[in-house]
Amino acid sequence: MNLVEMTKKVVSFRNKRNWKQFHNPKDLAISLSLEASELLEHFQWKNLEEMNEYVKTNKKEIAKELADVLYWVLLIQNDLKIDLVKSFDIKMQENELKYPINKSKGKNTKYNKL
Amino acid sequence: MNLVEMTKKVVSFRNKRNWKQFHNPKDLAISLSLEASELLEHFQWKNLEEMNEYVKTNKKEIAKELADVLYWVLLIQNDLKIDLVKSFDIKMQENELKYPINKSKGKNTKYNKL
Amino acid sequence: MNLVEMTKKVVSFRNKRNWKQFHNPKDLAISLSLEASELLEHFQWKNLEEMNEYVKTNKKEIAKELADVLYWVLLIQNDLKIDLVKSFDIKMQENELKYPINKSKGKNTKYNKL
Amino acid sequence: MNLVEMTKKVVSFRNKRNWKQFHNPKDLAISLSLEASELLEHFQWKNLEEMNEYVKTNKKEIAKELADVLYWVLLIQNDLKIDLVKSFDIKMQENELKYPINKSKGKNTKYNKL
Repeated sequence: MNLVEMTKKVVSFRNKRNWKQFHNPKDLAISLSLEASELLEHFQWKNLEEMNEYVKTNKKEIAKELADVLYWVLLIQNDLKIDLVKSFDIKMQENELKYPINKSKGKNTKYNKL
Repeated sequence: MNLVEMTKKVVSFRNKRNWKQFHNPKDLAISLSLEASELLEHFQWKNLEEMNEYVKTNKKEIAKELADVLYWVLLIQNDLKIDLVKSFDIKMQENELKYPINKSKGKNTKYNKL
Repeated sequence: MNLVEMTKKVVSFRNKRNWKQFHNPKDLAISLSLEASELLEHFQWKNLEEMNEYVKTNKKEIAKELADVLYWVLLIQNDLKIDLVKSFDIKMQENELKYPINKSKGKNTKYNKL
Repeated sequence: MNLVEMTKKVVSFRNKRNWKQFHNPKDLAISLSLEASELLEHFQWKNLEEMNEYVKTNKKEIAKELADVLYWVLLIQNDLKIDLVKSFDIKMQENELKYPINKSKGKNTKYNKL
């Protein structure tokens, strides 16, 4: 299943429930942000060792949170008529320029401070 | 380009910069959350009409924010060894059960209040 | 009760539970962000009329979310030895300069685009 | 300066700019969430030692982010007619019940798993 097929699936799910009427860019982006928060909550208060242990024993739950995030990414790109594969490609090219290997290798420094 | 190929691309980008050493589930999830916030910021203070106009004239910028979100989704599923396509499928099946069409059609009500 | 007294209260609550050991700036800031998300969730999918109605009938719940946000603000300023009243004063002075009345009156434009 | 005086200050700042027209609970809560994210960004990718060093050398910047968070807390409680001091008091009483000292002391466990 690729991104186009996944997108068809979420749009069909929405259409069957007649939910398009509630969807606008702001509320879709809020949903995405809330799901990202729910994913983050899993790792809160844990050190590296605790996280690794937690990931092993709770992978299914974490995977579903990540799927929730993807759900909204797909609806947003659909509704805003964004070609996500193309945008991803453009963004990766920009990242290559923002973070030249020789300057950024082994450094956790933001591009504007390199 | 499908999710597997996209994931290879972000992992290769990271490996060339030797950044894996900085990555752990908590900070990856923070990154995802921060990028989701940046997307949301585009729609802040705007009503529906203003959003539609804004989306038309700023599609490239919005698309790149969404690509940033996807970037972290891909790294997280890679590092946590999550099969995102499978998780997405499981989650969509759960959503079907949580939101039966006859109960949820045309309603913006959360499943636990249906 | 002023900010100093409120801060004493949250610090005392924490000390009695011996929770300081788990607290570091990153996880405190995550907590703040998660509570802000929980507040936001109350208004998701609602138009202005629905929000006003919702606020009337759910004020207690919303108020407690806002108190949760304040809880973390107080702990952060305590642990990072920030004088929040002074910082607030400095920030308001900066806001006055960033948003001069004659340029910003009646406009929802960010300072860097004024 | 207490919370009432701070609130007067932000409301007066807004009134002079005639910004009330743009403010509704959803967008105010978005603002709060975005400012919380900006605070969190300061601690991203840093370990404990790096955070402590960073806090020392960047306290002013961090303090201003926290003041930004407080700014929106104050506007929200004003617009939604919330008595924040009272809500804080109620919430702290609830926290006492949710986290009894004998059960929660020294544990980073959420109340629903105690």
